[in-house]
Amino acid sequence: MKKRQEQKTDSLRGCVHLVGAGPGDPELITVRGRRLIENCGALVYDALVNAEMLNWARPDCRCIFVGKQPGQRCATQESIGDLLVALASEGLEVVRLKGGDPFVFGRGGEEAQRLQAAGVPFTVVPAVTAALAAGAFAGIPLTHREHSSAVTFVSGHEDPRKGESTINWEVLARSGSTLCLYMAVGRLGAIAQRLQAAGLPGSTPACAVQWAGTSRQKSVVGTLGNLSFRVAAAGLSSPAIIVIGEVVSLQQTLSWFSPENGADHAQDHLPPLELPLADC
Amino acid sequence: MKKRQEQKTDSLRGCVHLVGAGPGDPELITVRGRRLIENCGALVYDALVNAEMLNWARPDCRCIFVGKQPGQRCATQESIGDLLVALASEGLEVVRLKGGDPFVFGRGGEEAQRLQAAGVPFTVVPAVTAALAAGAFAGIPLTHREHSSAVTFVSGHEDPRKGESTINWEVLARSGSTLCLYMAVGRLGAIAQRLQAAGLPGSTPACAVQWAGTSRQKSVVGTLGNLSFRVAAAGLSSPAIIVIGEVVSLQQTLSWFSPENGADHAQDHLPPLELPLADC
Repeated sequence: MKKRQEQKTDSLRGCVHLVGAGPGDPELITVRGRRLIENCGALVYDALVNAEMLNWARPDCRCIFVGKQPGQRCATQESIGDLLVALASEGLEVVRLKGGDPFVFGRGGEEAQRLQAAGVPFTVVPAVTAALAAGAFAGIPLTHREHSSAVTFVSGHEDPRKGESTINWEVLARSGSTLCLYMAVGRLGAIAQRLQAAGLPGSTPACAVQWAGTSRQKSVVGTLGNLSFRVAAAGLSSPAIIVIGEVVSLQQTLSWFSPENGADHAQDHLPPLELPLADC
Repeated sequence: MKKRQEQKTDSLRGCVHLVGAGPGDPELITVRGRRLIENCGALVYDALVNAEMLNWARPDCRCIFVGKQPGQRCATQESIGDLLVALASEGLEVVRLKGGDPFVFGRGGEEAQRLQAAGVPFTVVPAVTAALAAGAFAGIPLTHREHSSAVTFVSGHEDPRKGESTINWEVLARSGSTLCLYMAVGRLGAIAQRLQAAGLPGSTPACAVQWAGTSRQKSVVGTLGNLSFRVAAAGLSSPAIIVIGEVVSLQQTLSWFSPENGADHAQDHLPPLELPLADC
């Protein structure tokens, strides 16, 4: 601790903390994440971050929204990098607050690379990634000695019908691992077909969980074969996690969470972006 | 919140919170986890939990150690379940504090099943699982748009040379997913051989990270082919996470953490067990 304080006093240069905000409920950020938000001079945050966390910041903290919103134009990754470097160069201690964990589907790696290339000191604060929250609040142990000894987090963002997909769905179908799909609601039908074609039975238990742990939590349970229809019928949309595997069957007895006891996660009044835009 | 309080007042029955303590640094527990520890009437904790967290508990809180220590006899899973049910039946609010996340290789699922069967109300508080901390503090983005769109957490506890292993290492070797091995240090040589035999190149970057984020953090970088020798040469032991995949190469530029700035994680004076013992 002493060393860290000395570094700060010695240098006029600021720094950037890449902080995971966790899955939505503000109580599910880490103690360190909350402390850094309370002390920082600038807070650069995403759309999935619970707005209540902004209230923790100092009155003089510069809060800047750079989030992506479905169907709208968003800040480019390059402009976000420029912003972080510029704020740190002003000598500010900057928190870059990202939904979930910064190093799991969060482009935190790209932002760290940009900071490193610019010579800006940074730290990384891990967090509860969305799949862990989906498991906890839907009552699904992602691993279990009697069911699964592995769990895979995989992006459903790529179109599985396109040739250039880097994801080997055929191999994942045979892995025996619990599968947790991120950003997959829109492509669930195509992904489920591809997994079934590769041999994963259509009867495999599957569940979609949206806004896990908050007052807006919705979950839909079914099978690999029918979940995409049930999700559509329930009107469940992004952001959600899809869990596929035998462990999902445990949800029947272990489901314990009532959304009416969950934290609010209001997102109705996102501020305007101030950065160059791109299609996202 | 109102509803939850009413439930408590209405019933003499206690409840159990299955709380993940995170990877070791006490600041990496969630805000909710810390609050529940501060308020509970009984705290049942594991060997991997940072002893500093016990200081957060009320003076009248009953703190009970049920941890596993390598090479020693430990409390049986059944006796831990009995204890949780008994404490809740006394009307206590119980925190069952487990290293990492309760639903990732933590037997949290089994404890939840036991509580459910006994009619004891429970909640689950997710946490930073060890692999997320290893990535954050070793400077390894577990996913990255240019390298990997999936990450798999897999138990290395089973002997891969035994026939009864439920893990399909051959399939995992071809998945293109970043692999994070838990509890694998003792079997790393055999696992690495099996992954290579299945086609994962011996030149694949690989890294072992012990006690991530604490003053005791040690990491060893190498390749799938040579990591087990380097780990042995460095004297690195459990608990550690092994990360295998192209993303490990990013560690060369993104490594930012100095253990001398990390939190202490003293474990020298674990208390005696008071429960029936088994070989573990």
